[in-house]
Amino acid sequence: MKRYRNGEIWDFEHEMQVAEGGKDVILGLDGGTTSTVCICMPIVPFSHSQPESLPILARAVAGCSNHNSVGETAARETLEQVMAVALSKSGSNRSSVRAVCLAVSGVNHPTDQQRIMNWLRDIFPRHVRLYVQNDAVAALASGTMGKLHGCVLIAGTGTIAYGFTEDGKEARAAGAGPILGDWGSGYGIAAQALTAIIKAHDGRGLNTMLASSILDELGLSSADELIGWTYADPSWARIAALVPVVVSCAEAGDEVANKILLDSVKELASSVKAVVQRLGLCSGDGKGTFPLVMVGGVLEANRSWDIGKEVINCLSKQFPGVFPIRPKVEPAVGAALLAWNFFMKESQEENYKS
Amino acid sequence: MKRYRNGEIWDFEHEMQVAEGGKDVILGLDGGTTSTVCICMPIVPFSHSQPESLPILARAVAGCSNHNSVGETAARETLEQVMAVALSKSGSNRSSVRAVCLAVSGVNHPTDQQRIMNWLRDIFPRHVRLYVQNDAVAALASGTMGKLHGCVLIAGTGTIAYGFTEDGKEARAAGAGPILGDWGSGYGIAAQALTAIIKAHDGRGLNTMLASSILDELGLSSADELIGWTYADPSWARIAALVPVVVSCAEAGDEVANKILLDSVKELASSVKAVVQRLGLCSGDGKGTFPLVMVGGVLEANRSWDIGKEVINCLSKQFPGVFPIRPKVEPAVGAALLAWNFFMKESQEENYKS
Repeated sequence: MKRYRNGEIWDFEHEMQVAEGGKDVILGLDGGTTSTVCICMPIVPFSHSQPESLPILARAVAGCSNHNSVGETAARETLEQVMAVALSKSGSNRSSVRAVCLAVSGVNHPTDQQRIMNWLRDIFPRHVRLYVQNDAVAALASGTMGKLHGCVLIAGTGTIAYGFTEDGKEARAAGAGPILGDWGSGYGIAAQALTAIIKAHDGRGLNTMLASSILDELGLSSADELIGWTYADPSWARIAALVPVVVSCAEAGDEVANKILLDSVKELASSVKAVVQRLGLCSGDGKGTFPLVMVGGVLEANRSWDIGKEVINCLSKQFPGVFPIRPKVEPAVGAALLAWNFFMKESQEENYKS
Repeated sequence: MKRYRNGEIWDFEHEMQVAEGGKDVILGLDGGTTSTVCICMPIVPFSHSQPESLPILARAVAGCSNHNSVGETAARETLEQVMAVALSKSGSNRSSVRAVCLAVSGVNHPTDQQRIMNWLRDIFPRHVRLYVQNDAVAALASGTMGKLHGCVLIAGTGTIAYGFTEDGKEARAAGAGPILGDWGSGYGIAAQALTAIIKAHDGRGLNTMLASSILDELGLSSADELIGWTYADPSWARIAALVPVVVSCAEAGDEVANKILLDSVKELASSVKAVVQRLGLCSGDGKGTFPLVMVGGVLEANRSWDIGKEVINCLSKQFPGVFPIRPKVEPAVGAALLAWNFFMKESQEENYKS
């Protein structure tokens, strides 16, 4: 097992009295651009259909762990730290761990997966089962209670659609960040709104209520000042935080804000369509039922202009069998349920072989 | 006069023998995101109509001086350094300087202008006339030989349209950077191309030749790897450098690449239209003649798919009097000509008063 360079993260293990026959546990981790959450659960039978009764031992929270955003070293330190805190809180140590599912944003390619897996291998004892996934997979599992079937649409600061067939085929769409076309995301919506202000100001676009509303919100006195504000801080979340202002303007009837939200609905629906069609989730006749797990601030149904509802309306014309789910547990619990399911499946397969 | 903190930049002045009655000079500076150029010219009469015969004493070059991009301190050090080198090369020092025109990108608001002016004031003797402009103004002057009349369209890594009426009214459009709608720029074109690759790959968009062409150019083996490549380095110029590949694909008939270039033409034309209409450059009947200075790699006419030519075609339908100019001198010379003109005008006005 790895001894941490600063010799701190795992120090609690030496001081800890682990009860003889202490519980076997699993770790589920959801690592995003905004925060990172780790859940520790015991390996005991439980009802997958009742989110309320999940036996959660501990929950730990940390900051950003997207390596594209904070770099490899900082991302790893955050991930290792949050796992150590969750284990320590649950009164367990690494020798009690049976499986870990690390679901982190920025895993876009098998090489990303392998790199994280190699690093994770050094932290835990040899026999621990390790699973590395894109964080969208944990979000899907949080809506299906650990079953990898159907599609998840995440629209928060960023956006991605990710899906699985029951026989394990997977596909994704979007999730490539703001430069590479995630226009339906919170960042995408807000950046379009800022652009609309500039275009109205310089004569390229229609006048819009977005100008006064957003400048007020930011305490700026002119559209020119928006340029300095925008580039002063590269954080995508800071820009995405303007989405509620855009929704308010659309609700008040502003044409430009309505167009931005309608475009966002089209973009989000197009990501789901691409995944559903590539995986054939809607069956041959297009009418098959499949779950669509919906996650993230942009899709939350708390406004009269309801982006999530419009996405469903748009999708159900083409796929009448789409079954929307808003998860009752957080994605980190989804990751823990995934670890639980993977572990059970592999154990059963091994028992069968032996 | 300012003594530079490191005591180095202006040291040459102490070692220099300036001839009695040494020439009075002006400095013109073009500071952009890619490079910064400073020109030193004598204050002597010359023919404004003959770019070949301009009496240039010295030229100095440095790196980026956009404060939004490298920060205030680094930007200022670059600007001060490049002016010192130009003066030193021309055998002059700060007491010979009569006027300075600093045309730098990132000047978007009177407060930006004032901040730079205050700083510049500390460097030069009290009597030196100082002018601070957006770098687009120097580009306009480079095509009109120092006269502020007409419109300039710049499309390189970024894009901006900037115009002046003969009686000094000014207007601009775009120039707000990639987050705020500069979609016709080199960066905008290339980012759309990268997005098209991701969309084709994940099933949201049409197949396109851009995929193999750009992946080959970058030495990547899959569209997924583009994500890591894109976010590994935030430089806009690195992405904009892919424009020639997009043009090649459009020339070869690729539908997606053609659409991207046509959209870029529309965006660029729309910036010019906004400026021309706000300033009434086309006169009341829309047929008045006005110069349109065209600058930047995206507008260079060296390909059969000629973006600059298409922008002109698009504009001349609405403004038959548009008169395109491709400057024969660089923008820093435009800045020097501006300093020259401002200085002459102010001197004449003062002579008239006294």
